[in-house]
Amino acid sequence: MIGKKKKKKGQLIVLSGPSGVGKSTVIAELMGERRGDIYFSVSFTTRAPRVGEADGVNYNFVTREEFEEMIVRDELLEHAEYVGNYYGTSLKVIQDKLNAGIDVLLDIEVQGAAKVRAKCPEAVLIFIIPPSFEELSRRLHGRATDQEDVIAGRLEKAREEYQHIPSYDYLVVNDKVSEAAAEILSILKAEDCRTRNRLHLIDDI
Amino acid sequence: MIGKKKKKKGQLIVLSGPSGVGKSTVIAELMGERRGDIYFSVSFTTRAPRVGEADGVNYNFVTREEFEEMIVRDELLEHAEYVGNYYGTSLKVIQDKLNAGIDVLLDIEVQGAAKVRAKCPEAVLIFIIPPSFEELSRRLHGRATDQEDVIAGRLEKAREEYQHIPSYDYLVVNDKVSEAAAEILSILKAEDCRTRNRLHLIDDI
Repeated sequence: MIGKKKKKKGQLIVLSGPSGVGKSTVIAELMGERRGDIYFSVSFTTRAPRVGEADGVNYNFVTREEFEEMIVRDELLEHAEYVGNYYGTSLKVIQDKLNAGIDVLLDIEVQGAAKVRAKCPEAVLIFIIPPSFEELSRRLHGRATDQEDVIAGRLEKAREEYQHIPSYDYLVVNDKVSEAAAEILSILKAEDCRTRNRLHLIDDI
Repeated sequence: MIGKKKKKKGQLIVLSGPSGVGKSTVIAELMGERRGDIYFSVSFTTRAPRVGEADGVNYNFVTREEFEEMIVRDELLEHAEYVGNYYGTSLKVIQDKLNAGIDVLLDIEVQGAAKVRAKCPEAVLIFIIPPSFEELSRRLHGRATDQEDVIAGRLEKAREEYQHIPSYDYLVVNDKVSEAAAEILSILKAEDCRTRNRLHLIDDI
């Protein structure tokens, strides 16, 4: 049996879901409930900021040249191209947080999630879906930040992403944001109770 | 993708833990919180009822002869001998509940749990431990229903049971009953979110 003093590592949590499903809103609710004791990993991207998005908050916005340099220097846990833009996650920041016992939340798409799974088999992968595909279409149109052809591209992409759902550990439906966040909180609490994460609590007998 | 109409089966939940850890109290709290929408499987046993225990509530108390007939007729999901007495679980009752979409909770010891796991790989196995071994000893002495040699036997048995903890999915510490019950509720909610239990929620796209 493992002794009591072993420090608990943080959990690596991956959230994916189609564009328009409301991930950002669910994440905001989640972070509020956990009072900031989860570190939300801010991804790097080459896409243009949307209205209201801030550099270093929603994403670290970089140029294509800067992003490709990070790839060359092997500074990314994962990166992927999505609807013509790069998205990626800094490796060092995440390792430091996990080693300090802090849970880390990644908001990444299916290609990136598969890479994280390959590198960190103990990562918890959660996929968020809308109540229905029609509802997803309604939400994308309601957002009104994208052109019709971009929306059509996102819906087509969503269809592809759905094929990857069986690789995810958990599936959460974002019908009401508070309920989706509550389900994710339960998942994180349950994962914390996993035997492999708690062997340090057992007496040496 | 699987269509929407597939009926969800109930979850089979196995709770184990050393004698004296407070399983019954945690289970009572749990059943209260879930307002009776979990079916608690009442085991059959040949051990004598303790003060306050009622037939059909805590256990179905039967004779050694009656129990051995059930074994011969293959009517048990699992059965085991524990501190000189038989304990077992009726197969048919549980199957009916699970097929009706009702979660079923089993309070069984490590041998029985291993048999359930072998027959139902999708069962959720939870082991409950006390905050420390000294605390377990205190609780057993505080219960004052058993003789000293019986208590010594239960502590020795607990040491053996601890060796089986790595076969369990989850480990819950019963320090405060309400917190242990809350953790188990989170585990059940999370298990309900498992992708394999939710494929029926995905649109046919």
